Amino acid sequence: MALPRYQILEQTLESGIGSGRWRPGERLPSIRALCQEHSLAKVTVQHALQRLEARGLIEARERSGFFVSIPPREFDAPQQVSALDEPRPVSVSQIFQDIMTRSAAFDLLPDLLQDEVPAGIVQLNRSIGRALRRQRGSFQYYDEPAGNPALRHQLALRFVKRGWGAEASDFCITSGCQQALFLALMVTCQRGDVVAVEAPGFYGVLQLLEQLGLKAVEIPASPATGMDLSALEQTLASWNVKACVVSPSYATPTGALMPPEARQHLLELAERHDLAVIEDDIYGESGWLSVPDTLKAMDASERVIHCSSFSKMLSRDLRLGWVCGGRWHKDIVQLKLTSQLAGSRFVQEGVAEFCADGGYAAFLKQHRQRLQLQRNQLLDELALWGTTLRATAPQGGLALWAELPKHVDTLALYGRALEAGIVITPGNLFSVSGQFSNCLRISFAHPWNEQRLTALAKLSQLVC
Amino acid sequence: MALPRYQILEQTLESGIGSGRWRPGERLPSIRALCQEHSLAKVTVQHALQRLEARGLIEARERSGFFVSIPPREFDAPQQVSALDEPRPVSVSQIFQDIMTRSAAFDLLPDLLQDEVPAGIVQLNRSIGRALRRQRGSFQYYDEPAGNPALRHQLALRFVKRGWGAEASDFCITSGCQQALFLALMVTCQRGDVVAVEAPGFYGVLQLLEQLGLKAVEIPASPATGMDLSALEQTLASWNVKACVVSPSYATPTGALMPPEARQHLLELAERHDLAVIEDDIYGESGWLSVPDTLKAMDASERVIHCSSFSKMLSRDLRLGWVCGGRWHKDIVQLKLTSQLAGSRFVQEGVAEFCADGGYAAFLKQHRQRLQLQRNQLLDELALWGTTLRATAPQGGLALWAELPKHVDTLALYGRALEAGIVITPGNLFSVSGQFSNCLRISFAHPWNEQRLTALAKLSQLVC
Repeated sequence: MALPRYQILEQTLESGIGSGRWRPGERLPSIRALCQEHSLAKVTVQHALQRLEARGLIEARERSGFFVSIPPREFDAPQQVSALDEPRPVSVSQIFQDIMTRSAAFDLLPDLLQDEVPAGIVQLNRSIGRALRRQRGSFQYYDEPAGNPALRHQLALRFVKRGWGAEASDFCITSGCQQALFLALMVTCQRGDVVAVEAPGFYGVLQLLEQLGLKAVEIPASPATGMDLSALEQTLASWNVKACVVSPSYATPTGALMPPEARQHLLELAERHDLAVIEDDIYGESGWLSVPDTLKAMDASERVIHCSSFSKMLSRDLRLGWVCGGRWHKDIVQLKLTSQLAGSRFVQEGVAEFCADGGYAAFLKQHRQRLQLQRNQLLDELALWGTTLRATAPQGGLALWAELPKHVDTLALYGRALEAGIVITPGNLFSVSGQFSNCLRISFAHPWNEQRLTALAKLSQLVC
Repeated sequence: MALPRYQILEQTLESGIGSGRWRPGERLPSIRALCQEHSLAKVTVQHALQRLEARGLIEARERSGFFVSIPPREFDAPQQVSALDEPRPVSVSQIFQDIMTRSAAFDLLPDLLQDEVPAGIVQLNRSIGRALRRQRGSFQYYDEPAGNPALRHQLALRFVKRGWGAEASDFCITSGCQQALFLALMVTCQRGDVVAVEAPGFYGVLQLLEQLGLKAVEIPASPATGMDLSALEQTLASWNVKACVVSPSYATPTGALMPPEARQHLLELAERHDLAVIEDDIYGESGWLSVPDTLKAMDASERVIHCSSFSKMLSRDLRLGWVCGGRWHKDIVQLKLTSQLAGSRFVQEGVAEFCADGGYAAFLKQHRQRLQLQRNQLLDELALWGTTLRATAPQGGLALWAELPKHVDTLALYGRALEAGIVITPGNLFSVSGQFSNCLRISFAHPWNEQRLTALAKLSQLVC
């Protein structure tokens, strides 16, 4: 049986790419040119191109056409894994707190404000402006405690695509993901309780544990697949653990993606040991090859508390996140009410409109492409460093995890870099036990313009 | 020596008002007419009118001229005072929580959105819109932990007028006053600690104490002058009290204003017993006869934590408050950072611009007049109720405190009113010890349009 026409074209283009007729980064002929050359309908050509794009062989760039993908450079994976640990109180030093505050921007040069605002952000801001003008008398009233229903409805729609039959009533809007994590820990734990965390894992969680007087027990996490479930199992057998904070999709700092079987295993352990599972999904929608289902989607017993926000994927200045608290949801809404009353209705309405108009989906698509491109550029740059390094090559998130030679002390490097105006995130921030001192989280969240490339080159000099 | 011309006119008008030539509520002749009748310059007439206005004899109404003030009706002051109590854990029932959520709007008819937006709010919204459009790359960065410096500078300027040489660095911006109170209690107290509160006092504080596992000890508060300092002294001698939450200026629910000597006494007691004094100043700027200095202005030893917000005086939808933490300020900023990272920069910038442009000061002036008018109307309406009642006549705030005959159970009344679509705030919400069951907080925060007047009349039927 003859192949369909689009498949014939797909193969032709693929072998052209393979033979070097079009090299990595080169532009393919336009759709119109391909139609003419192969005597095909536009829809057929588009179909072939879409299939190649889905396979990662080519990339669409807005208003410029299709380009042959540049295979990302690969490094050996970082090898250093955390040792099994015992629960310990968390005490984050002042220097670490300073670094964390600076590192939240995910930028080597946080003072370098981007001049160009993506069209999606302009559209979002217009939606918020419209909501503000529509406001009428509502400036005299507080929003409802769980947050704006229209926004919660939009969130529910998004999560249906990620395997979870969510409803608006499952969501409570928060001032960002950090507040969601705070509320989740406040309602599930009491001072002195033990919480299992990933090592390396998000330092913001460690700060929360310190503030709330909770103890951390670190579970080794693989840079590729996240939390080591057999280590977790061992820990749960030894200690009375109350909750587990986990970031299954493109976790910071490594960008690890936890496979479905591991997720299932995690929930089984949670069931057996009566754990609250706090899912930090803030990078979940960033994946450019796939947007994984949420852990919450597998949660049959309402023990997963899903936390996330619009900060990483849309705007950090919205201060809009959400928490789906499962069996603790009512307590979470109550605590949010007591500790803050409500959020800004007009901001939520603006974002809800932006989602309903399709603006957010379109922005996300472009943003993922930007992140992929920026990640590839970073990997290319790291290959020029005059030292051996290992690095993760995440398929989502905003940063990768680099392992430098053992003798490198990235905390000392932080001080030297800061003198040169460069902000880095040293590895020991991601653990309470002083591990990962030769590791770095390196961000690809921002465009690699000349200033950032210069900063990165300067950094490589400081390392070597 | 002859009196200046403006004083002659002032006396003429005053005696005209006294003799009934112009009756309460009646419009005075226009400035132009007065100029012609008395052969005076416009500036002289204006001076006379301003003096009469300052003395409360007449009121300016925007674009309508000057009107003879209507002397507010007076009721006997409520008599019921709280008994001295011992510390007790707080447990707010679900029904109370529902009432509190509804009562936050300070409206008998919270579903009745006002159609007309005051010019000041339109101007504020424009400022926020401009800040949003100016935003450029900052959507990718978090605001600094203590909040926007321009807004903190504006706040400091405001407080200089209230007796306190504040600086921008004294402030930490929060998501409203409730979050400010939450942070203040989190950093000064630990689970099980005893906190002194006013009775009757703000129920939001009682909810916070419950959430944080703190014990309340109620200090009787006079409807006129606030917390009874000798009762506080007695309590401090008997119990180990960690903090005291106090609302010295136009406290909810009574609208009491604590005299300067009592404030001084409070701070002396705080010093002697090493108390943290948490000042809830949310109604401080609402006073139409005077805007009292803050308690913080008298604080020589950095033990007053000043908490407030723009919610009551400007817009509840901004979610913008602040906390000045004194000796605990650094801890408060750190806790805010850990639990929420930051606030929305564009909202803060918009409000800062609105303040700097003089928009906020102008709005406040009008808003105070509106509140005074609405309070007077409410007192008039209450005089028509077919029952004896006692009521406070506050000079600021958004509500008065009414004491109904002993047999009236306002909690039962709440249910009956709700069936009629009317939201009231029963007295027992303002105490943890079941007191004030025949009292009501009645709001004058919203214009007395026909619907609200009808609701108030309906309520009087339900009471009698």
